[in-house]
Amino acid sequence: MNLLLLLPEDFVAEGRARLTGRRLQHVREVHRAGPGDELKVGLLGGSMGRGRVLGLDEEALELEVELGEPPPPKLPLNLLLALPRPKVLNRVLASAASLGVARIVLVNAWRVEKAYWKSPRLDPENTRAQFVLGLEQARDTVLPELRLARLFRPFAEEELDGWAGEGLRLLAHPGAGEPCPRAVEGPCTLAIGPEGGWIGAELDSLVRAGFRTVDLGPRILRVETALAALVGRLY
Amino acid sequence: MNLLLLLPEDFVAEGRARLTGRRLQHVREVHRAGPGDELKVGLLGGSMGRGRVLGLDEEALELEVELGEPPPPKLPLNLLLALPRPKVLNRVLASAASLGVARIVLVNAWRVEKAYWKSPRLDPENTRAQFVLGLEQARDTVLPELRLARLFRPFAEEELDGWAGEGLRLLAHPGAGEPCPRAVEGPCTLAIGPEGGWIGAELDSLVRAGFRTVDLGPRILRVETALAALVGRLY
Repeated sequence: MNLLLLLPEDFVAEGRARLTGRRLQHVREVHRAGPGDELKVGLLGGSMGRGRVLGLDEEALELEVELGEPPPPKLPLNLLLALPRPKVLNRVLASAASLGVARIVLVNAWRVEKAYWKSPRLDPENTRAQFVLGLEQARDTVLPELRLARLFRPFAEEELDGWAGEGLRLLAHPGAGEPCPRAVEGPCTLAIGPEGGWIGAELDSLVRAGFRTVDLGPRILRVETALAALVGRLY
Repeated sequence: MNLLLLLPEDFVAEGRARLTGRRLQHVREVHRAGPGDELKVGLLGGSMGRGRVLGLDEEALELEVELGEPPPPKLPLNLLLALPRPKVLNRVLASAASLGVARIVLVNAWRVEKAYWKSPRLDPENTRAQFVLGLEQARDTVLPELRLARLFRPFAEEELDGWAGEGLRLLAHPGAGEPCPRAVEGPCTLAIGPEGGWIGAELDSLVRAGFRTVDLGPRILRVETALAALVGRLY
């Protein structure tokens, strides 16, 4: 946790916040902060700054908060991601948030097991908690936008074009033959398939929606590794 | 598992392998392969090819194996990594192997907790098992070289120069100010610090050893995310 993310309800007075629970525990056990110490803080969805520890005990952490710095800019990157296995989902969401991905849609695909859609990890409380972990890691305050598309075809054929908007549309596909471009300046929508890959009909839909298949070489990477490698290359 | 990695002892005759345990289970439960099906296989440290399923039951998988394709080339990348938390270590090792990192040294640092060095995850059986997972993921057969340097200073000051050899030496440091170069062609040694960062004396040692501090922007990434993003950018 490189940034303590504050919520409006943490403020007990102007410029004064009181934290309990997970964040208190982290500051006690990992930061091992004491009165007078300064911590990087940020208001969820707002600006960042410093929090000076006023008091800290088993019950609560009291901070004097000064905000004023803007959070880092998001990447102009939309991520279209076939719903990963629940075990992988949390890491991917946190990682995408830490990388600065602006918008994410989790879509169904033929090779996504139906049971994945029933995972409690898709509950808004959990997806938000994973994003918060990513923001705390990277020092950002702005949650990525998340959307779920439980039906591939209607989404790909009717909504994707509007959702993706302007910019490049890239489909990461190991062995595509065309290397992923580097250092794109403008917006980009990046599609990453399920573990077994997209099927032919899905690829066709995405190509019709303007996606170019690109790769990072012959290696097949796990989704979270591929995502970070692609972001490192694109921006 | 996108490649079934075979060991010399799996061969029961010329061109014929018999697998049990984890790999058998994976082929039964994930690939759901049956007689006649072909699987991508590779010989650990050797070439890759195809295995045709001759028989498959609860006890063993029998394959007719034809090898002949070379594994993908490694990246000319050495990774100097402050020993991560045990919880993170497995993922980082597998991920580094999948990305094609050629050589890794895990080094001590001031902000690496001493207990991490006692983790059974550092046993050669475990580190090798993690590398194998990464190779199976990426379709590669060649294990990265791994070295442990339990003392930072003697390693950094006496051995690092020889270990790193030719090429660029980059130290990833959030907020360094100089962006990480892109698309380097030749060899490179990349240093990634512990969660709390290197301390001043460590940075000094690395700079004396020829490392340039570079960043990927203001975001602080987890080690496995940073590694993949840096590799995607460098190669």
